[in-house]
Amino acid sequence: MLKLPGLIDPHVHLREPGQTHKEDWDSGTSAALAGGVTMVLAMPNTKPPICDESTLDLVLASAKAKARCDYAQFLGAGPDNVDWDKYAGLPHRAAGLKMYLDSTFGELRLDDMTLWQSHFQNWPKGLPIVAHSESRSMAAVILMAAIYDRPVHIAHISLKEEVLLIKAAKERGIKVTCEVCPHHLFLTSPLPSGEGPGVRANGRLEVRPRLATQADVDALWANLDVIDCFATDHAPHTLAEKDGENPPPGFPGVETLLPLLLTAVAEGRLTINHIIQKSVINPQKIFNLPVQSEIWVEVDEKAAYELRAADMHSRCGWTPFEGWQVKGRVTRVVLRGREAFKDGKILVEPGYGKNVREK
Amino acid sequence: MLKLPGLIDPHVHLREPGQTHKEDWDSGTSAALAGGVTMVLAMPNTKPPICDESTLDLVLASAKAKARCDYAQFLGAGPDNVDWDKYAGLPHRAAGLKMYLDSTFGELRLDDMTLWQSHFQNWPKGLPIVAHSESRSMAAVILMAAIYDRPVHIAHISLKEEVLLIKAAKERGIKVTCEVCPHHLFLTSPLPSGEGPGVRANGRLEVRPRLATQADVDALWANLDVIDCFATDHAPHTLAEKDGENPPPGFPGVETLLPLLLTAVAEGRLTINHIIQKSVINPQKIFNLPVQSEIWVEVDEKAAYELRAADMHSRCGWTPFEGWQVKGRVTRVVLRGREAFKDGKILVEPGYGKNVREK
Repeated sequence: MLKLPGLIDPHVHLREPGQTHKEDWDSGTSAALAGGVTMVLAMPNTKPPICDESTLDLVLASAKAKARCDYAQFLGAGPDNVDWDKYAGLPHRAAGLKMYLDSTFGELRLDDMTLWQSHFQNWPKGLPIVAHSESRSMAAVILMAAIYDRPVHIAHISLKEEVLLIKAAKERGIKVTCEVCPHHLFLTSPLPSGEGPGVRANGRLEVRPRLATQADVDALWANLDVIDCFATDHAPHTLAEKDGENPPPGFPGVETLLPLLLTAVAEGRLTINHIIQKSVINPQKIFNLPVQSEIWVEVDEKAAYELRAADMHSRCGWTPFEGWQVKGRVTRVVLRGREAFKDGKILVEPGYGKNVREK
Repeated sequence: MLKLPGLIDPHVHLREPGQTHKEDWDSGTSAALAGGVTMVLAMPNTKPPICDESTLDLVLASAKAKARCDYAQFLGAGPDNVDWDKYAGLPHRAAGLKMYLDSTFGELRLDDMTLWQSHFQNWPKGLPIVAHSESRSMAAVILMAAIYDRPVHIAHISLKEEVLLIKAAKERGIKVTCEVCPHHLFLTSPLPSGEGPGVRANGRLEVRPRLATQADVDALWANLDVIDCFATDHAPHTLAEKDGENPPPGFPGVETLLPLLLTAVAEGRLTINHIIQKSVINPQKIFNLPVQSEIWVEVDEKAAYELRAADMHSRCGWTPFEGWQVKGRVTRVVLRGREAFKDGKILVEPGYGKNVREK
């Protein structure tokens, strides 16, 4: 039996408010606990998006009532909320500011770089900024970090050019950190036929950033030291949606994160220390999260089994890793002294989760 | 009569080798002299593109035989010529390195940012790098300048977000300079009908970067102090091409530059000092160009007249400013002691122009 600190997932979509047929604060945080994740940072591209006090109040009310693991909620950067100095106290109630700079699911996107500048200037110093920014957009937002001399965290990097540029920027002393998702470490872009491991239809492969080439995947693995965090970008959509017309981009991920990482440990591609560093210690530092006590995850390292969506807690009901053989199972999770998960069952009630940004 | 130093145009396309039906070193440099431009820096997106020793030799042979004004020739950054340390002496023979990072005319374009990094690392320190890079690509290449702590010159900026970001980068001490083209100062994006001043068909409006909005144009004028150089991006195509299927992007410009700028001076929007600074002194500094003697341009500031392609020397035979009322006419140009242009006539022979990078 291996005992790990509770994992922090700095990038999840819980779909509430607005799309609770995909997920909600109850199902999403149950899935997190089942995956050994005891704290999630939730993204703001819900319906409505979380961009001001009233929408933040709305989402935090749902979270308070339903969350089973600990959490914080991001605010989204929009064209109309750049004057953060006018919103006294609001930024401090959020996990950080999320800037959508490239196309993805939902309506939040900032095209005009003058708005990026305003957010970088006005979002309180010392509070995190996270950017969905791919390729040269990523380079552009790292320039903002250099100009305004404040940290930026790059969400879900997937490309060789991204990891190598972040490496160079870090060496130059620019304050940039980044995360990588398991699907960008373990999956590549689909074959021309649309077939890939565990994936039966093209719609299921839709994700942003897209799955990349083997060369990109290899570059991520070769530069693990440049990658600060593992993050799932848990982005549940139902199978009907993924298999239908205009499949929305996104994969569920919180329940497969640790089994996939532990399998890589078993294969000698990763160490337990990597997991602790990138899923606990670095997220704590980057997002200024509390170091809590009596929170741990027990893992049966020897357990070899098949990943099956049928065994999972996410409402979306599927996984891109269906049928994958993995080694390492989460058997028990203790969250602030209480047994929160054991042998496949969630043992804490909705509302047990705490908002870590609340005093 | 006003006497100005000979203007330097750091951005022209002379179409030789490969497309001399549009322009060649003779017609293009004649047009330059008629515009009061005594030195041009020629871009490498010819056919073939200028990327190595043999193509540089090819273009410089044409230039030596035909150029009537002084010049230097850029090398293009490609995927196969990143190892500049292996090309001993070659970079020093060029005006600088031109990187095409967004779509434009010709086949040179670098998509992969790892190649940008290699060029920034390997192109000899102290020699200029110029980037065709729009919007967030521009921000990305400025990040390269920050990371590798070397200057980059941004070609033809056109957007508010570009000039404001360059301003912020300069204030932060990042080594970035930029140029603006007259057409981005004096024209806006076409009306939905496709009609615009002096322009009869949509194909004629095609240019990269595209003509922008009035708000963008206003931002350029409001931030003239951020703009280091005027450059024409003289990009001749024939009228048949511009009015045909798939019109190629680009405007001629060397002959309309000074009349347009002098008209802005007459209107009080610009000063003669702006022209000297941005068309002579700053290009000399940025591109490390020789300060030559006995080179000047005589201007009749009072002359009010209509711009007409029929009066011009470019082979392309049209101008987007056809019919514009201007004030200020180039009457005489002296180039290294010789009368090179007077009263509409070119007076120096092909081959009189000198390669300013040649010892």
